[in-house]
Amino acid sequence: MSIQAIAFDAYGTLFDVYSIGELAERLFPGQGPALAALWRDKQIEYSRLRTMCATYKPFWEVTQDALVFSCKKLGLDLTLDAQNALMGQYAKLKAFPENLGVLQALQQMGLKLAILSNGNPQMLDSAAEAAGMRDVFHHILSVDAVKKFKPAPEAYQLAPDVFGLSPRSILFVSSNGWDVCGATWFGYTTFWVNRAAAPLEELGVAPDATGPDMNALLQFVQQRNGAAK
Amino acid sequence: MSIQAIAFDAYGTLFDVYSIGELAERLFPGQGPALAALWRDKQIEYSRLRTMCATYKPFWEVTQDALVFSCKKLGLDLTLDAQNALMGQYAKLKAFPENLGVLQALQQMGLKLAILSNGNPQMLDSAAEAAGMRDVFHHILSVDAVKKFKPAPEAYQLAPDVFGLSPRSILFVSSNGWDVCGATWFGYTTFWVNRAAAPLEELGVAPDATGPDMNALLQFVQQRNGAAK
Repeated sequence: MSIQAIAFDAYGTLFDVYSIGELAERLFPGQGPALAALWRDKQIEYSRLRTMCATYKPFWEVTQDALVFSCKKLGLDLTLDAQNALMGQYAKLKAFPENLGVLQALQQMGLKLAILSNGNPQMLDSAAEAAGMRDVFHHILSVDAVKKFKPAPEAYQLAPDVFGLSPRSILFVSSNGWDVCGATWFGYTTFWVNRAAAPLEELGVAPDATGPDMNALLQFVQQRNGAAK
Repeated sequence: MSIQAIAFDAYGTLFDVYSIGELAERLFPGQGPALAALWRDKQIEYSRLRTMCATYKPFWEVTQDALVFSCKKLGLDLTLDAQNALMGQYAKLKAFPENLGVLQALQQMGLKLAILSNGNPQMLDSAAEAAGMRDVFHHILSVDAVKKFKPAPEAYQLAPDVFGLSPRSILFVSSNGWDVCGATWFGYTTFWVNRAAAPLEELGVAPDATGPDMNALLQFVQQRNGAAK
């Protein structure tokens, strides 16, 4: 089956969150990597706990809560200035270098493109704007519409609904192993941008394809759709 | 409202998982703490992903998957012997030293006691047996009955159902911050055995009481039920 549309995860997939760790290190010398890692873990953990317990709140707030906890846990004094600076990074993340070119090439192939992210709409709009990507996406889909974070099926359902396509004819792309597993369970065709060369999650499910960056994704789509013709 | 029954989390609350880290260090010198921490994180992560995506499998298998992934991630060669030894620890965990005495005192107060755990029935039976606790519990409740892991409400519902009591009249006890938060959201009266002196999770909810060990729990129940008479 040929790919007719592509839905992209945002953070770590389209947008490089590396600058957050850099700023954390400037603010808390020697603790930057530990803070960035714990913050990310807690952000994801809180999103899952709130989904499982039906206590949703927007990703921006979840992210802020995760930052506050992480600093307490590491014994770091989080001033309001530091908090604002760290949270502010989310509005000005850089895209990975190859991304814009790949997105434009996919668009020129006639594919419809969307973001499908846990981020809330304002966060995603700012990030897409800052990365110069606003025009390549037909839709910027936030799980805020269903008040459940990925990997809840209701969150993944957003793209099939908006495109009017079956999950299998949509390619879901993420750099997060758990996200591609969730999307594969859901029924998408999936591509794992495994930038960190991580092992596959042991969840009894595997993405349709894996590559080290978005160039590999472009190749996969060209082959897949070429072969399907 | 007086407490009429108590439901206990198992791992880290009743049973000390410290020996797992010790064995990990013997098997993989220098990597024990990292392996034990990642293994625990992945175990919990997989339980949540499988609950959110309705792909439940028993905790024993989830735990094994988490161990396999963790070793791959850390570049450790997990032989079948090492895997069996590490998994086997779950059948022979020690109880924390004060636990049995506290459980017996609570039982003598006329309270009904249960375990309510993500572990599957066989794991819990072995652990309770090995810790000499089989006789103090009226019920050993496994989420396996509902095929959803904590903090899913369906998992917490097991104790009110079996006791025929309202959640608020049951005290839920856990050493895991996320678990007491989930239980509080659910409606239990809650006590956090904060053995690690960790900060409270930033989830906008707090347990009814917190203490450093199970002796503090006993005190809380004595005061609560004394005051309620």
